[in-house]
Amino acid sequence: MTLWGGRFGEPSDADLRRLNDSIGFDRALYAEDIAGSIAYAEALVPAGLLTADEASAIVAGLRQVLAEFDSDSFALMPGDEDIHTAVERRLIELVGAVGGKLHTGRSRNDQVATDFRLWAMRAADRLTSDLRGLQTALVAAAEQHVDCIMPGYTHMQPAQPITAAHWLLSFFWMLARDIDRLASARSRMAACPLGAGALAGTPLSIDRHALAVSLGFQSPSENSLDAVSDRDFVADLLYVCALCAAHLSRLAEDILIYSNPAFAFIILDDRYSTGSSLMPQKRNADPMELMRGKTGRLIGNLSGFLATLKSLPSGYNKDLQEDKEALFDSLGALASLLPVMSAAIRSLQIKPEAMAAALTEDLLATDLADYLVGKGLPFRQAHHAVGAVVRRAGALSLPLSALPLAELQAINPAFDADVAEVFDFARSVAQRRAFGGSAPAAVREQIAHAKQRMAGPEE
Amino acid sequence: MTLWGGRFGEPSDADLRRLNDSIGFDRALYAEDIAGSIAYAEALVPAGLLTADEASAIVAGLRQVLAEFDSDSFALMPGDEDIHTAVERRLIELVGAVGGKLHTGRSRNDQVATDFRLWAMRAADRLTSDLRGLQTALVAAAEQHVDCIMPGYTHMQPAQPITAAHWLLSFFWMLARDIDRLASARSRMAACPLGAGALAGTPLSIDRHALAVSLGFQSPSENSLDAVSDRDFVADLLYVCALCAAHLSRLAEDILIYSNPAFAFIILDDRYSTGSSLMPQKRNADPMELMRGKTGRLIGNLSGFLATLKSLPSGYNKDLQEDKEALFDSLGALASLLPVMSAAIRSLQIKPEAMAAALTEDLLATDLADYLVGKGLPFRQAHHAVGAVVRRAGALSLPLSALPLAELQAINPAFDADVAEVFDFARSVAQRRAFGGSAPAAVREQIAHAKQRMAGPEE
Amino acid sequence: MTLWGGRFGEPSDADLRRLNDSIGFDRALYAEDIAGSIAYAEALVPAGLLTADEASAIVAGLRQVLAEFDSDSFALMPGDEDIHTAVERRLIELVGAVGGKLHTGRSRNDQVATDFRLWAMRAADRLTSDLRGLQTALVAAAEQHVDCIMPGYTHMQPAQPITAAHWLLSFFWMLARDIDRLASARSRMAACPLGAGALAGTPLSIDRHALAVSLGFQSPSENSLDAVSDRDFVADLLYVCALCAAHLSRLAEDILIYSNPAFAFIILDDRYSTGSSLMPQKRNADPMELMRGKTGRLIGNLSGFLATLKSLPSGYNKDLQEDKEALFDSLGALASLLPVMSAAIRSLQIKPEAMAAALTEDLLATDLADYLVGKGLPFRQAHHAVGAVVRRAGALSLPLSALPLAELQAINPAFDADVAEVFDFARSVAQRRAFGGSAPAAVREQIAHAKQRMAGPEE
Amino acid sequence: MTLWGGRFGEPSDADLRRLNDSIGFDRALYAEDIAGSIAYAEALVPAGLLTADEASAIVAGLRQVLAEFDSDSFALMPGDEDIHTAVERRLIELVGAVGGKLHTGRSRNDQVATDFRLWAMRAADRLTSDLRGLQTALVAAAEQHVDCIMPGYTHMQPAQPITAAHWLLSFFWMLARDIDRLASARSRMAACPLGAGALAGTPLSIDRHALAVSLGFQSPSENSLDAVSDRDFVADLLYVCALCAAHLSRLAEDILIYSNPAFAFIILDDRYSTGSSLMPQKRNADPMELMRGKTGRLIGNLSGFLATLKSLPSGYNKDLQEDKEALFDSLGALASLLPVMSAAIRSLQIKPEAMAAALTEDLLATDLADYLVGKGLPFRQAHHAVGAVVRRAGALSLPLSALPLAELQAINPAFDADVAEVFDFARSVAQRRAFGGSAPAAVREQIAHAKQRMAGPEE
Repeated sequence: MTLWGGRFGEPSDADLRRLNDSIGFDRALYAEDIAGSIAYAEALVPAGLLTADEASAIVAGLRQVLAEFDSDSFALMPGDEDIHTAVERRLIELVGAVGGKLHTGRSRNDQVATDFRLWAMRAADRLTSDLRGLQTALVAAAEQHVDCIMPGYTHMQPAQPITAAHWLLSFFWMLARDIDRLASARSRMAACPLGAGALAGTPLSIDRHALAVSLGFQSPSENSLDAVSDRDFVADLLYVCALCAAHLSRLAEDILIYSNPAFAFIILDDRYSTGSSLMPQKRNADPMELMRGKTGRLIGNLSGFLATLKSLPSGYNKDLQEDKEALFDSLGALASLLPVMSAAIRSLQIKPEAMAAALTEDLLATDLADYLVGKGLPFRQAHHAVGAVVRRAGALSLPLSALPLAELQAINPAFDADVAEVFDFARSVAQRRAFGGSAPAAVREQIAHAKQRMAGPEE
Repeated sequence: MTLWGGRFGEPSDADLRRLNDSIGFDRALYAEDIAGSIAYAEALVPAGLLTADEASAIVAGLRQVLAEFDSDSFALMPGDEDIHTAVERRLIELVGAVGGKLHTGRSRNDQVATDFRLWAMRAADRLTSDLRGLQTALVAAAEQHVDCIMPGYTHMQPAQPITAAHWLLSFFWMLARDIDRLASARSRMAACPLGAGALAGTPLSIDRHALAVSLGFQSPSENSLDAVSDRDFVADLLYVCALCAAHLSRLAEDILIYSNPAFAFIILDDRYSTGSSLMPQKRNADPMELMRGKTGRLIGNLSGFLATLKSLPSGYNKDLQEDKEALFDSLGALASLLPVMSAAIRSLQIKPEAMAAALTEDLLATDLADYLVGKGLPFRQAHHAVGAVVRRAGALSLPLSALPLAELQAINPAFDADVAEVFDFARSVAQRRAFGGSAPAAVREQIAHAKQRMAGPEE
Repeated sequence: MTLWGGRFGEPSDADLRRLNDSIGFDRALYAEDIAGSIAYAEALVPAGLLTADEASAIVAGLRQVLAEFDSDSFALMPGDEDIHTAVERRLIELVGAVGGKLHTGRSRNDQVATDFRLWAMRAADRLTSDLRGLQTALVAAAEQHVDCIMPGYTHMQPAQPITAAHWLLSFFWMLARDIDRLASARSRMAACPLGAGALAGTPLSIDRHALAVSLGFQSPSENSLDAVSDRDFVADLLYVCALCAAHLSRLAEDILIYSNPAFAFIILDDRYSTGSSLMPQKRNADPMELMRGKTGRLIGNLSGFLATLKSLPSGYNKDLQEDKEALFDSLGALASLLPVMSAAIRSLQIKPEAMAAALTEDLLATDLADYLVGKGLPFRQAHHAVGAVVRRAGALSLPLSALPLAELQAINPAFDADVAEVFDFARSVAQRRAFGGSAPAAVREQIAHAKQRMAGPEE
Repeated sequence: MTLWGGRFGEPSDADLRRLNDSIGFDRALYAEDIAGSIAYAEALVPAGLLTADEASAIVAGLRQVLAEFDSDSFALMPGDEDIHTAVERRLIELVGAVGGKLHTGRSRNDQVATDFRLWAMRAADRLTSDLRGLQTALVAAAEQHVDCIMPGYTHMQPAQPITAAHWLLSFFWMLARDIDRLASARSRMAACPLGAGALAGTPLSIDRHALAVSLGFQSPSENSLDAVSDRDFVADLLYVCALCAAHLSRLAEDILIYSNPAFAFIILDDRYSTGSSLMPQKRNADPMELMRGKTGRLIGNLSGFLATLKSLPSGYNKDLQEDKEALFDSLGALASLLPVMSAAIRSLQIKPEAMAAALTEDLLATDLADYLVGKGLPFRQAHHAVGAVVRRAGALSLPLSALPLAELQAINPAFDADVAEVFDFARSVAQRRAFGGSAPAAVREQIAHAKQRMAGPEE
């Protein structure tokens, strides 16, 4: 039997029930639902709606229901359309009619909004922790490769030499922004809807501030009509998840490219590689492909939910029931992906020799232009001259350093014998020592900053 | 043990396995996987890879595996990472080493592509059938309200009178286009990847045409590299599902508006209505809100999957594993929504009196302009004159027909006593009798067309 | 001539140029590009790359270029592929070869990232201001309707009476969250990429902190490789825009429903209404429909850009050029929508009589249940009893208050003569006086909070 | 002055006008709008609404308006809110009051739907033609590299040898499906809304079939209410564009990877490459990155528009005005991308030596397993044995062919001296000669199929 059947002549159609019921997925909220009900029962005492004894009985009953869920012994019954109904039904079985007093002044509208926010706050904390885990792995890997030089790419073409540590740390800062986004979202999320009733607020003299704080919120929500249909916190988290996945997908793309034998810059550990059912030699970086693939899915969860929110009229609408599976899915995906990425980074083999072998002199063309700037040419002319040098070297199939000085001087007379000093990858990298640069000195400073950031509060 | 562990020194990490394994959802493909393997075993005989006896043993074994799945007695084992692995593992348990011959020349890449297409073809047929069911319900409801006049709206404001049948039938044609899209998608889908191997094609002399036809495909796929990573058929179906849901959401929106007491044009049956845990009087059209809400989700499934496809390099990539849950979800949602919508339409009460009560004379303003056109005014002048009439009537708080003739003539002298005939809703509707119009005569013709369409082949 | 043609044997194809060039849209960044270049020129002096005189000449030249853009007299030339190229080309025309020194150590990669962040910071400030404008309009309208009672809806069905002020204020808090999101995004955005070079950092001894602060940033970016390809700030703003539009779409939906004649709760001013080319009586709320329609577009801008970010390899990739048009479009849409919505709210006519006429007694069913709770019934039993009352009243076609006491008592003996007091809408609303409730007393407190929030810093 | 101002007391607000007016973008429809009006004027003659002379005058006037647009001499006036208004205003200026008769029985609702469909039908034809152009380029390139062997990849790891022609042709079939989708969409699009009026159909006795055919449609739309708000054809095209772009992005990704110096399989022509403003050596494949980047945008256009369609109530709603810019943008993007991709493929240098140099023996591991199958082992055992061979070779840092026979036999005694024959890439490829395989023989057959397909009707 439903909670609401009194005014209906005919029971719900079975197909509708299957469509409508949310117990299949909102069961995940049981702990938060019971925590919310315990807090609510205690708030009903000073409001004069429950005696202390009644509240004690209800709280004891709720604790038993919790124990049943925790031990996986809770038995669902037909009519348990959602977790709220299921808990209330079982409570009344356990404590009798007094259990029916718990819902006084409360609606499933404020109840589910409260439960789901509580759940989301905890999930945000878990996600922050997983992100910290990956940051830790990246910093640890970077510390071991501060002096390791590799080609840096833009447009997937060789650009300038960088250090491997700098490459690894570039992902640290993406995650730092994700953590900042999460902290900001969590702070907005911490407004407690309980006491908003169905839409108009509660007629009971409940202390909503005390109730909010008792559940771990910062404050009660400011407007009851907004409170019951505000799912901004879901959108916020779906957005953070999607962008965070996009960051993971970029790291994954690099790992996939650099572990192709044409590069062989890195080797993913056996434990994070898979094979083929047909081709016996295969060693695939499946988890990295899933980082990419699931990013699409998380983008879809976000855009789909925003479409669901669009144009909803005031007040709670059942459309909002779509909030849970989307968020469970996005957070669940990251909860699977992040530990695997962290472990993959921790066990990643970086191959300095392969990186060194890929350092070609065209990566120093900018340094060559800078050399001409040092000789007094405006950069724009220097750039053009070096372009001609590169073209000439290509035509002669020579590396830049093998081009005779006479050839260089034919292009621009500012070239001199000291140009040979330019062809030194370590020197090139060491010069990028300004704040945030790729030079080992700057990277050591960057690592120190990264550690400070991790030690600090979640922004 | 995996199918591919031979070349690895260390087993997979447990977290990776959880992330990577697809048996949790691709188990749904068991029937198609076994059908594909039976057909493949039979194709290996003329190719000289299996003797007839070996093929018989394998086929018998596969049938037993099928029976185990059908009866829900199949026991998953650790190492069963996907449905293909699980079936092959169990086959070898049942028939011995000969079972290991089944995978000759076949890769999971062509296997899964074949299985999933087979599944999708069947799912497309089921969806077509569900859509036909809703079309049938709409036509049946329309037939009963051919002469029932209601206000037609544009911009959510009263526009012109139409017939209720015409309103109902407007959704028939949306679904007709969905069915056409499905038929077109299904036809493109019917190219069989089996024999494409991992990417390069099979070295065996298999008759791919015969194999394709034996499985119900139209032809083999034309390029093995394309075949293993072509998931266009998934995108096609996700698109059809999303647009079809958008159509349902529009019908749902109308039902939600028209069943608000301010309109009360229709009453949704008790069986498709729900109540509130707090407010005893409530009678909510939850399923209609879910039609809207799930449309967002289906849009997200599509956009997410397209994002997953974007920029994939050639050949199979694990990213494509994201294809299944998205499609299962979208098709599953429609499989839940469509029967409920069909039943809701079949049991919908239409209230002609409430519709009639909402017919206000401003709905006839266009007819009034047409009246002036009949008196010789160019339409643009007639429109302007009637605009002034509407404004004057508003200022006097009078219905249009109550405005004295002198007032009308003061606005335009072409008004005459016969203007009274214009204020007749039935006459207005009856005039819209051109093809596709709202007049009862045209609607009867439209119903005949609709029935022809349903009787015809799925376009 | 391009900036980079030195090494190429053949010029670019004309079709490619059309595809590649961004001057058509990034011209909007001219002020920020020139501001960035002025700051950079000044930073090159202490770094020893420019003399004070050279810097003065360059700065003067840049100011002249700015004046040309401001006065719309800047002449684009073939070869001006983007705003950066155009400005540098013109600078060299104006000041001679010394202008070619400006680009020393700078790449378009750090330059465009800096320009676009500067632009985005300003745009975020404008958006905050527009949002404050709409908040102001909502609070002003609410203050005038604190005691005006209207039906509140959930599931688009009558739920409980609320006050019109409470309804209006519910949107205030959505916008407050949008402003908070913007503030958080703006703070993350304020890291200056200048000095990151192409990817590896600058070899010049530039004080990046001073440079960042001189341009209005909080700090320099921490990792040069991340800095040049970090477009999180674009995603952040696209997300805020999409969610903010979703909030506007919800307000628009309410306005569209409430201005339908079946409700007639509100009248949109003539200045914000439009008519029909065919139907002379029409008065459409077009701007509200565009609020809804453009929300879809803004969701698309977000999901599209996230898809563009997905799986990009390290470093700048040209894919990122797609960042500008998306953000221009989303921010531009809100810059059009928000002033219209603010003006529409300021001029909105609220019709208390129409709202009062729509107050039906079923809106008091919860109060009736609360009445029974007051008589000692547990809420769950009270709810069920009132459900039966509603059903009985429906069967007899009577309003709840007209049901004889005997009928009530037959359903539950706790009903007594004092039940008549329940049927008072003002009393019902006044009881919802707990924090955040709909009661006039609570709403006055809410208005005070709202004003405090607007007066405070942008969170 | 607007077409609809008669009933309003106050003119529209300027901000609203800017928001509402569509002339900024729908001007692109002028030719279709005028064609539609000419056909409509001619249809009004037999319907008795225009005399032949009036129709002639109107048609002559419309032709003059067309000429003004064609020669870019049409002068927009304030009040020209959209292309329909502008054309009608100018017509009346040119031919006098009789021009005001053109709109009789017609609404902008059916007019714009007709115009936009006509435009879309033409755009679909242009897109088909551009797709054929790229198919032609792919087939031509393939024909030159039928015998050129390259490594085939799955999961971005070496898999099996394939032919370069087979790789190129894999994209042909993706485009063939796009063309099929377009043809199917175009056929659904060819239903003419003209005569649907605002929503209820026309009261005039117009022959809608003749009118439809005269404009190039297949038939009139079947339901007037559906006709004015059906934008399925826009969604269909947006979907085809998004998926087609995804196909281009995959080709682009391969080109980007294969033109990295670590591969150097291909060289993009100078005309389709770009350089860097800082790094003189750079040679970037910018257009390929834009193929990827714009794919995100096109996915966004689709998902955004589907969100706009969601939950629209019956009849035309202004939200639908968002249809045009989205479609213009997506089709415009492909109109830019496709010719560049076609030219890039036509001028692509393929480097057989670099491809050959990348052929490593692990690509033959499957052939080695097939060898063991030939010796009688079940494939699953053969696969496992070769896995061990690969592992052993890795441990000894030897290519597979250099492993002594004794080592092989220690792993499995079925290995024999003839195993040496396996290590032949050409032999491996030639064996994949079944339909759709990578062998030169099969590829020649595939090319013949491709040519047939291009010669055939657009499916």
